[in-house]
Amino acid sequence: MPVPTHVFDPPFNIIRCSHAVLDVTNLDKSAAFYEKTVGLHIENRDDKSVYLRASEEHQHHSVVLRKAPKAACNRLGFKVGNDGDLDKAAAFFSENGIAYAFVDQPFQGRTLQFTDPFGFQIELYATMEKRPHLLRRYDLYKGCHPQRLDHFNVFAAEVQDTVDFYARLGFRLTEYAEEDGDNGRIAAAWMHRKGNVHDFAITNGRGPRLHHIAYWVPTAMNIVHLCDVMASSGYLKNIERGPGRHGISNAFFLYIRDPDGHRIELYTSDYFTGDHDHEPLRWSLRDPRRQTLWGAPAPRSWFEEGSTFAGQAVREPRFVADVLVAD
Amino acid sequence: MPVPTHVFDPPFNIIRCSHAVLDVTNLDKSAAFYEKTVGLHIENRDDKSVYLRASEEHQHHSVVLRKAPKAACNRLGFKVGNDGDLDKAAAFFSENGIAYAFVDQPFQGRTLQFTDPFGFQIELYATMEKRPHLLRRYDLYKGCHPQRLDHFNVFAAEVQDTVDFYARLGFRLTEYAEEDGDNGRIAAAWMHRKGNVHDFAITNGRGPRLHHIAYWVPTAMNIVHLCDVMASSGYLKNIERGPGRHGISNAFFLYIRDPDGHRIELYTSDYFTGDHDHEPLRWSLRDPRRQTLWGAPAPRSWFEEGSTFAGQAVREPRFVADVLVAD
Amino acid sequence: MPVPTHVFDPPFNIIRCSHAVLDVTNLDKSAAFYEKTVGLHIENRDDKSVYLRASEEHQHHSVVLRKAPKAACNRLGFKVGNDGDLDKAAAFFSENGIAYAFVDQPFQGRTLQFTDPFGFQIELYATMEKRPHLLRRYDLYKGCHPQRLDHFNVFAAEVQDTVDFYARLGFRLTEYAEEDGDNGRIAAAWMHRKGNVHDFAITNGRGPRLHHIAYWVPTAMNIVHLCDVMASSGYLKNIERGPGRHGISNAFFLYIRDPDGHRIELYTSDYFTGDHDHEPLRWSLRDPRRQTLWGAPAPRSWFEEGSTFAGQAVREPRFVADVLVAD
Amino acid sequence: MPVPTHVFDPPFNIIRCSHAVLDVTNLDKSAAFYEKTVGLHIENRDDKSVYLRASEEHQHHSVVLRKAPKAACNRLGFKVGNDGDLDKAAAFFSENGIAYAFVDQPFQGRTLQFTDPFGFQIELYATMEKRPHLLRRYDLYKGCHPQRLDHFNVFAAEVQDTVDFYARLGFRLTEYAEEDGDNGRIAAAWMHRKGNVHDFAITNGRGPRLHHIAYWVPTAMNIVHLCDVMASSGYLKNIERGPGRHGISNAFFLYIRDPDGHRIELYTSDYFTGDHDHEPLRWSLRDPRRQTLWGAPAPRSWFEEGSTFAGQAVREPRFVADVLVAD
Repeated sequence: MPVPTHVFDPPFNIIRCSHAVLDVTNLDKSAAFYEKTVGLHIENRDDKSVYLRASEEHQHHSVVLRKAPKAACNRLGFKVGNDGDLDKAAAFFSENGIAYAFVDQPFQGRTLQFTDPFGFQIELYATMEKRPHLLRRYDLYKGCHPQRLDHFNVFAAEVQDTVDFYARLGFRLTEYAEEDGDNGRIAAAWMHRKGNVHDFAITNGRGPRLHHIAYWVPTAMNIVHLCDVMASSGYLKNIERGPGRHGISNAFFLYIRDPDGHRIELYTSDYFTGDHDHEPLRWSLRDPRRQTLWGAPAPRSWFEEGSTFAGQAVREPRFVADVLVAD
Repeated sequence: MPVPTHVFDPPFNIIRCSHAVLDVTNLDKSAAFYEKTVGLHIENRDDKSVYLRASEEHQHHSVVLRKAPKAACNRLGFKVGNDGDLDKAAAFFSENGIAYAFVDQPFQGRTLQFTDPFGFQIELYATMEKRPHLLRRYDLYKGCHPQRLDHFNVFAAEVQDTVDFYARLGFRLTEYAEEDGDNGRIAAAWMHRKGNVHDFAITNGRGPRLHHIAYWVPTAMNIVHLCDVMASSGYLKNIERGPGRHGISNAFFLYIRDPDGHRIELYTSDYFTGDHDHEPLRWSLRDPRRQTLWGAPAPRSWFEEGSTFAGQAVREPRFVADVLVAD
Repeated sequence: MPVPTHVFDPPFNIIRCSHAVLDVTNLDKSAAFYEKTVGLHIENRDDKSVYLRASEEHQHHSVVLRKAPKAACNRLGFKVGNDGDLDKAAAFFSENGIAYAFVDQPFQGRTLQFTDPFGFQIELYATMEKRPHLLRRYDLYKGCHPQRLDHFNVFAAEVQDTVDFYARLGFRLTEYAEEDGDNGRIAAAWMHRKGNVHDFAITNGRGPRLHHIAYWVPTAMNIVHLCDVMASSGYLKNIERGPGRHGISNAFFLYIRDPDGHRIELYTSDYFTGDHDHEPLRWSLRDPRRQTLWGAPAPRSWFEEGSTFAGQAVREPRFVADVLVAD
Repeated sequence: MPVPTHVFDPPFNIIRCSHAVLDVTNLDKSAAFYEKTVGLHIENRDDKSVYLRASEEHQHHSVVLRKAPKAACNRLGFKVGNDGDLDKAAAFFSENGIAYAFVDQPFQGRTLQFTDPFGFQIELYATMEKRPHLLRRYDLYKGCHPQRLDHFNVFAAEVQDTVDFYARLGFRLTEYAEEDGDNGRIAAAWMHRKGNVHDFAITNGRGPRLHHIAYWVPTAMNIVHLCDVMASSGYLKNIERGPGRHGISNAFFLYIRDPDGHRIELYTSDYFTGDHDHEPLRWSLRDPRRQTLWGAPAPRSWFEEGSTFAGQAVREPRFVADVLVAD
């Protein structure tokens, strides 16, 4: 595939992935799952929505659960450097024929919402309400001790174009999986802004859909304990894959499903990618260690299922590789 | 010192240490500490007492907190093989001029209480009420995930005689600390019945006093987390020593103090000692790795402070070694 | 099934499982695997055999690798209380028509070898040469830090009879898996002598065969690291199952295969079973949490493959349950 | 103190701390310590120097040991964005009257060396020789599995001026310790470029001296194991402080001394600091949780000892706070 060249001077400055807005069908049940099983902290709740954050996050929320008749990913949020970046983004979207709107979002103020050309519903903001972080409030730790939102992973029907689009926005490739041969097509790309393996991973598949959101946890032991807790509290079937070690990103991982089937990865261990001369790592689609270093296969659901974006039709991918891909 | 020869056929069969009865001055505060900070499970509570157990314990309680005007160790409990062993024990005490009494204890039935010649208040029982263990109820895990009561450690004013007495009851020496030289006196002894390093450790010092009770926890990470939780929930000063690695028993340890100052060790990693030809390990009092393999000294309080036994006068030890001892 | 009543006074005193003698086809390759990958310590080696032990073991060896034209389990070893127990065992075998022989084995002296009525080749001994344990020699730790041999697990063609035979020898049932219904047959039994979940597990299947030997390791992290090491050192395909949590025994486990396919479990976390009134835990064969609390299925090889005993024909099991069993 | 305002547009772009050059008196002994005890990988060695790196580092070296008659910190290295930044840096130094020199350093090419106004010997480079990282080469992991160089910590005699100087170079304050009161002076500052708590920490004290270099390790368990290994391999006295939890940065830490007394921190767990609106955290010098959340005091050596810079005279600090400071 054509690997995008890194853009050091993007049209506006996205700092990192920030939050996901998820539509859920049973707000109480979902809130209980994210708070008690996963271990996030509820920062605000009313009849229609629940806002949660992880222990090191100063920001008001990294997940927003919204009561809805149908489960969906409502929106993925990224934080920009400062308010001026929102205007630069608006200018960029205007120039490129991408519709956008400024809205005032609770707890995060001036917010620029847009749907990218591939159907991903995104919002940008500069300054969210702050709360003292809870990193040293170990007495409040619950669940698997999630520490910070780490990344989003989506299924894209037009994977190469999607990668190219986000590369123009300054997202930088760290690892990618590719068909072998001279005309090998890219099947998955891991791209970052904040200096680790990824903020945004883009995988070939029926899209636009959300594959998962991921929280960083302190150690593999927290993940082992989460498996034990889920197995003994009625959430056995919500353990979808793992625990295991990815070849990609070197992360120790677990994939679980929330009560509506939204997928969450718990994730620990990656590496620094901020050097200007950092080079992306290529994986052959044929290398099984990409998905898991230890060899245990992922279940079919993990390759096929994902959360649609509210209001977006899902398209078949432009091509189907002869290897299952959804890393 | 004269190391006692192991008695394979003791006068009655003690299986293991079982429970401690602790007098506490503020029952609610203590119950909250043992339940929420340490992580034991409350099995029964009323105005006068709270019974708690650890996750793998089928038995109704391994700690009993009793409301009392003055903090003290009320009694240390050991489990015997069966009801006949209680009668054998009574016969042995009669023959040896040791006063005893049968009482009916809540949740543990027929119980034989005695005070040994050195002032330690002990009770024996054969069958306690059972509860399903909570080992697989990970959803109920709290605190540092204590799994089972592991041992008691006491200060004895007459350490050699105390060791000899318990050796006659079948307690077997696994490790001991001794002065150097031909007439080196024993300063501390670790003795077991259940097949690991100890059920009962006896240390030279002002006695009779309880130095600590110890709970086994699954991993060092549980102990690290307990430190973090105590430091962030108002119990910083109750962290007395550690975490660290004992030379003795090879255990990873932490010593904490409950709201009345009763000392609790959280403990992980020891070894099997049930072979008939298992030989006790001698430590020179001069070897600093005995107390901690890593070299950090214990605070003075750890050598000097302990819980008196309710109603027992404390005597000075028969000798004072020129090295602090309270392993 | 008829659950055997525990025999508190067996005809002779087996203390615990002690060692396995494995026939291997490439002695150097196997020795390197057990030493460098698993992390056992080589205590003796010559052209024909290699003796290894784990870190807390005083005994000279807990695995003996013997060069042989064909891979097999040669013999499983148990330690008895003292030399007199060997004579009592010989008397018991004579009375029960079981052939036996006294041999002098290197490093373990007087040894009583017999083949039980079901084809399992066993040896008993009282006193093996001792070595200082290596528990505190952390500088020598390698691999996954194996600490002690924990248990054997075998496939038995006549599972009920095998369980009954070992129950007569004092092995005590701690957990078992059974068909549902009034006439439900036992499919697997975990039996111990040393006070934890098992020394010897007996599973219905084509037998006599060895399913696995198991080493205790300090924490789950050691097992996670072993997976990483095997995946990056050419042993990816030797990771057969796990890591995961057994319902049975509550252990965190990993199953690997040595270069000849002999299966080794790395195992941590179990519980004390030495109370006289300890009751065995029944699992329905229909309860999937028995095999793994977290739900990931074991591969077919794990249910079907095992090491034959050198010189023993393998028989079909007396019955085939309609659930795969090889816990 | 006057907290420096963050400079988003510094005169040249430092990416992160990169490497330390340490003068050692016994090259073989030091190389063995860093390789076998700490667990770094030797990338190059000759009679005069040894180059080592940690597992995720693509760069050729993050520590250079140089044989010298006297132990000292020779130089601290930072990586800049690209070669043009070296020229910008040279221009900046010219304008500000700071002497510098371009040299050609083995394995890292064009290198700009300067001594800052406070005596710290620094070098900047843009591109070092690359090696495939060893993150997935778990078979090569040794010691405590160090993953990447995380930061430097120095004693500065003129702490405020030093902080201001590095703030002008774009280093951003994340945490700081300060005297109480309106005229409270800064006593320590943690500053970063790469997006976590620090690349460079500056502590009031006799300076210029290096307090420590720090490597990130995956988990606290790696640090516990390092203590065990050092205690059993003749390096007990080189364990100086810990393990414990810093209040500052929330890190789990251990401080050790190499054979020449150079201090190394092993460190895990910090947090993301790259938001434009990230605010520094102030600690009162009176808050003991700053240095350790768990309360165990650091030894006197930790506050007082450090490595001088080769060829720099050490000055007394401008002020002495009435609390020991060397976090």
